[in-house]
Amino acid sequence: MTTQQHGRNSHDEITLGHLEEGAAFTALARGQQKAPSERQSLSPSTLPSPSRLTDNAFAFQRTAAMRAAVGLDVFTAIGEGYGTSAALADRCGAAERGVRVLCDFLVAIGLLGLADGRYVAAPDAAAYLDRRSPAFIGDALNFVTSDSVLKAVLSDPVAVVRRGGTILDDAEHFIAPDQVDWTTYARGVAPMMARSAIFLADLVTSHGGTIERILDVAAGPGQNGIALARRVPDAHVIAIDWPSVLAIAEENARGAGVGERWNARSGNALETELGGPYDVVLIARFLHLLAPDQREALLRRVHAALAPGGRTVAMQIMLNDDRVSPPFATMMNFNVLATTPSGQVPTVPELEALLRSAGFDRLEWHELPDSDERIALAWK
Amino acid sequence: MTTQQHGRNSHDEITLGHLEEGAAFTALARGQQKAPSERQSLSPSTLPSPSRLTDNAFAFQRTAAMRAAVGLDVFTAIGEGYGTSAALADRCGAAERGVRVLCDFLVAIGLLGLADGRYVAAPDAAAYLDRRSPAFIGDALNFVTSDSVLKAVLSDPVAVVRRGGTILDDAEHFIAPDQVDWTTYARGVAPMMARSAIFLADLVTSHGGTIERILDVAAGPGQNGIALARRVPDAHVIAIDWPSVLAIAEENARGAGVGERWNARSGNALETELGGPYDVVLIARFLHLLAPDQREALLRRVHAALAPGGRTVAMQIMLNDDRVSPPFATMMNFNVLATTPSGQVPTVPELEALLRSAGFDRLEWHELPDSDERIALAWK
Repeated sequence: MTTQQHGRNSHDEITLGHLEEGAAFTALARGQQKAPSERQSLSPSTLPSPSRLTDNAFAFQRTAAMRAAVGLDVFTAIGEGYGTSAALADRCGAAERGVRVLCDFLVAIGLLGLADGRYVAAPDAAAYLDRRSPAFIGDALNFVTSDSVLKAVLSDPVAVVRRGGTILDDAEHFIAPDQVDWTTYARGVAPMMARSAIFLADLVTSHGGTIERILDVAAGPGQNGIALARRVPDAHVIAIDWPSVLAIAEENARGAGVGERWNARSGNALETELGGPYDVVLIARFLHLLAPDQREALLRRVHAALAPGGRTVAMQIMLNDDRVSPPFATMMNFNVLATTPSGQVPTVPELEALLRSAGFDRLEWHELPDSDERIALAWK
Repeated sequence: MTTQQHGRNSHDEITLGHLEEGAAFTALARGQQKAPSERQSLSPSTLPSPSRLTDNAFAFQRTAAMRAAVGLDVFTAIGEGYGTSAALADRCGAAERGVRVLCDFLVAIGLLGLADGRYVAAPDAAAYLDRRSPAFIGDALNFVTSDSVLKAVLSDPVAVVRRGGTILDDAEHFIAPDQVDWTTYARGVAPMMARSAIFLADLVTSHGGTIERILDVAAGPGQNGIALARRVPDAHVIAIDWPSVLAIAEENARGAGVGERWNARSGNALETELGGPYDVVLIARFLHLLAPDQREALLRRVHAALAPGGRTVAMQIMLNDDRVSPPFATMMNFNVLATTPSGQVPTVPELEALLRSAGFDRLEWHELPDSDERIALAWK
């Protein structure tokens, strides 16, 4: 037996590819790819460092460290003032050796600092990973690294790419009825969505027009419909999602004081009768899970469910037309490749064409600030 | 149902923590950690970006992409001249949709470029991930991302930290007898080790002294003993490792023309009689898998097995005394926490103390160039 360690060309960083490198390389690469015969002659002295490759291969350890630290509430304990590995181990109910090795690694990736034998949280880790913070996103991170997601994406990625879609079965994948992870999602992401929901409500109401009847398709934690209902005191919301998810959204609606103007309609948004007519139909963070034909069918039904002059609002991560940017969208595209049968992140022109084909004549694009998400406003 | 996507504060990069940030933060953090009451008052406008946290959580997708691309030989196919997603899909036996989404993500993390609809490999990817390259490390990357490793590190990292050691059972973990992954390792890493083996042979022979009998402890693919045997024409090597690993090392020894001066001794290096006396005992990339008491016992036995004036050579990733650098060593420390019952990456002072305690009087430290590994030369 030996070890799993490899030579590296850098003593001082864990290197992972950034877009800048990718873009620069794309610009340089045009016509410059070496022929195999040239590459065969690479001598050790001309070889580039392999460290980006080993670091990308080992990247799963970052996910593991995040799962461990959030699961044990390490950042919360640090925020409470437990700073040494012994104190943290005691507080978190873990072995000191385990906590020390975990925290040392978190120092190396910049999420903790170490000063005088005490760990301290980086500003972003303190703001988002301390459970006492109103901005806590640990539960949302648990969703994106859930056992189902890891099984889908990481257990056999060769099979995913071969198949061109998820290897999860019909009961497991992420558009399966009442798929269990969406409950985790609905509980976890609400804090992250408060800002975008308010932005969306501002945007929708800034255009004038009647807003009395709102449909929130694939509502998740319900934030978008709830924020709009709070902004427009007479508006009523119908929210469609799986029953277990809607139970959480309903709690949120009551908590926000709009419970009496908010109603759940449980079911599959692709099949359930939408009802209507509506003045606004919200479709947030949903279309990338669907196959193109499912999107088209949904948008036609949404168009039909709108009152004359009504509008739909599609908020969504989207790819640029080059398909390889923004980077987060390409990563989400790989994610939905592996978690759904035929989902894909749409490009802006694709979604625009779909909306026009579904009958929407007037169209506006907006960007969600500090985000890769975009918003299409489309009028019937 | 909704989506697993989160707001980001950057449109143009996938951000992951680098040491620079960590070190800078450590320097800044001294005494500056905010009290919980201060953090409670963070308003959206003063919140830092959560993108480092989401990107670290999503880092497993980089591992998945590496596994898929190496497993399907995408980089080899690109090197052969297959450039479009359709041509690559055909060559790799995969769905075009899968190949396109995978390659677009690889563009975003900088391992591929895209020009005129054709993917091109970045220089490091072409050098190390094209199976036709003599520097191919794809098999080594398969080892570091094997199913066993992923199970150990990622399936339940909370339990790993709680326990302070592996959750794998006695037949599965990485110092279990004949653990299956070490065969993958021995086959995969030989190309990566050629350079360090030559450096080691240079170093050992540069000090003069008799070198007739060499022991290679936990020999793996056998490169180190083989390189030394090639340098010293009369030297004989005894290599200890599991039988399946030694079979590969023996092939390598024969291939290098030293098969007649190279002998296998299969077994557990912690228990097998070492024999001797030896002039040189090589212990490469092994000690971090062991508990401190196992290291100590091994080094005492090595000292006893050396001839007077003989030396041991321990080549190893090592932590600095601060334990949080170099970053790659902290990552390997988290790795062995999860893959072994009680392994840990030693610090330089720890290993020095162990060697002295085992009876080694004279000690020299060397750094392996372009690597985080260090080499201790210790004389009896």
